Amino acid sequence: MKKLINRPEDVVKEELAGMAAAHADLISVDVERQVIVRKDAPVLGKVGIISGGGSGHEPMHGGFVGRGMLDAACPGAVFTSPVPDQALIATRAVNGGAGVLHVIKNYTGDVLNFEMAAELAEAEGIKVASVVTNDDVAVQDSLYTAGRRGVGVTVLLEKIAGGLAETRAPLEQVAALAKKVNDQGRSMGIALTPCTVPTAGKPTFELSEDEMEIGIGIHGEPGRRRAKLAPAGAITEMLATPIIEDLGLASGQQVLAFVNGMGGTPLSELYIVYNALNKILRGKNIPIVRSLVGSYITSLEMAGCSITLVRMDDELLRYWDAPVHTPALRWRI
Amino acid sequence: MKKLINRPEDVVKEELAGMAAAHADLISVDVERQVIVRKDAPVLGKVGIISGGGSGHEPMHGGFVGRGMLDAACPGAVFTSPVPDQALIATRAVNGGAGVLHVIKNYTGDVLNFEMAAELAEAEGIKVASVVTNDDVAVQDSLYTAGRRGVGVTVLLEKIAGGLAETRAPLEQVAALAKKVNDQGRSMGIALTPCTVPTAGKPTFELSEDEMEIGIGIHGEPGRRRAKLAPAGAITEMLATPIIEDLGLASGQQVLAFVNGMGGTPLSELYIVYNALNKILRGKNIPIVRSLVGSYITSLEMAGCSITLVRMDDELLRYWDAPVHTPALRWRI
Repeated sequence: MKKLINRPEDVVKEELAGMAAAHADLISVDVERQVIVRKDAPVLGKVGIISGGGSGHEPMHGGFVGRGMLDAACPGAVFTSPVPDQALIATRAVNGGAGVLHVIKNYTGDVLNFEMAAELAEAEGIKVASVVTNDDVAVQDSLYTAGRRGVGVTVLLEKIAGGLAETRAPLEQVAALAKKVNDQGRSMGIALTPCTVPTAGKPTFELSEDEMEIGIGIHGEPGRRRAKLAPAGAITEMLATPIIEDLGLASGQQVLAFVNGMGGTPLSELYIVYNALNKILRGKNIPIVRSLVGSYITSLEMAGCSITLVRMDDELLRYWDAPVHTPALRWRI
Repeated sequence: MKKLINRPEDVVKEELAGMAAAHADLISVDVERQVIVRKDAPVLGKVGIISGGGSGHEPMHGGFVGRGMLDAACPGAVFTSPVPDQALIATRAVNGGAGVLHVIKNYTGDVLNFEMAAELAEAEGIKVASVVTNDDVAVQDSLYTAGRRGVGVTVLLEKIAGGLAETRAPLEQVAALAKKVNDQGRSMGIALTPCTVPTAGKPTFELSEDEMEIGIGIHGEPGRRRAKLAPAGAITEMLATPIIEDLGLASGQQVLAFVNGMGGTPLSELYIVYNALNKILRGKNIPIVRSLVGSYITSLEMAGCSITLVRMDDELLRYWDAPVHTPALRWRI
């Protein structure tokens, strides 16, 4: 296992300490309890938005805490759900009186623990709404999931719902917009290499030198099938086609295209995939009106990528374009 | 070789086509001649700043083209200098009448080809100044260099000089500030894994499972020595100490700390290194007043990191903080 780490059991806390030091202007970090909170939280009268899940997917979610996106994030151990207490602490910290939205990726542990935190918070008088993302078209059920997994759409949803929340929209409206992003988005990923959880010390799965895993999950869990390594153009087709079909994208509809790296993939390769995706969509007369290319929802050092498409309308565009100022995403500051 | 590419010989052009499609609001790309130009270039009365070098270091330099940073970039083939004609085309494209600054990393091919381009541009009546970065403390001469290699400081210099150029400062002043950043900055890197040039198809060097290369170059060229894999804290010390000593950093002096990923390193590990670096500098009473953590000057999919420290003063801080709007860096837009 070759990693820039100290003791495997200290990985998350040291990472959080590094984030706290690097981004003291944007976030406050409770390293011990593993909660990252927007510096000026709670913002009075604003819906607080929190998310969380296992570590190992950085910059998601901690890198998205800041104005215009998340109010707090609670990372668990690597590839392990946060405990309910973390989500409860985060919920309390961001409650500005307008309620709190929980953004949950559809993994059994995450869903259960956030549900428990929501109940505890409501018992304290905090209004909580939840949205569960389940955008991965690769498999119906999976190793850690009943139903589809929540993946790339989560990043885009956090940005768009965060943009609306800044306008002081009520909780019901922010939750409804978040659900709309999930409904209008689909994703699929592919792995060229596995990844290694630090405390495990060995790869989560094996792939031979000429193989790839199509439909990979963000914890290295199996996808649809293994196949011989293919050129980027063919891989992009394998990912884009199921997404386009499942979303029922039709000629003339506009999309946000998100080409995401899994952590060990150079940016240059992501642009090659984006180029292939752009050609496919142009061929179907589906214009890309916004794009995001980079490693935002990762799986440690896994090499590979995922594609997410979201069908856009004026409302989604407005809040995607809204100002955001977080460690990992910032524009119109 | 596991890469998200099509034909190895098409890697750079397809990447550029992807960038052109993804960032049409910021840049214009001549895919055939491999030149990336700021959308609104030439900006009349502003010094144009261009840079270039081999591809494989993305987002450097193409990802830094835009307001507040570079006016153009000319990427060569992977790990290969751009030809003089590319630099000449870029120089012409960004000449707004105030002259053009060439930012050149100290590699023999880059220096020669940019010199030739400068002569050709001057023969056309364009005033050109050059700055050569040579911040890598690892080795004195190297495989591709007489003198020290230019590495991480190049990114910071492009941002800071770009900030000054936006104020319509004259060429001499922009060149002087660029030289100052180089003079006040030092870097060193380490590799955990090698990288593979697409057209070569095999790794540029070999490292066994328990080895790392200390002082690695950004093309995988040898550094100071090989050593047994060490914890992140010890690695950070191995990189930071030579930098601090060479720069003669003293107690109370302020730095910008840049922890850079080599392309295949997860962000979480960079924050662990940043945390260790922060402790080392705190122990020496050298406050980090600005930071940058991420993969900005890479070596394809190499795993590893580099550290760059720049001694900061009010002038450097002012232009570091100035607005920037490029594909890879953006703030205060």
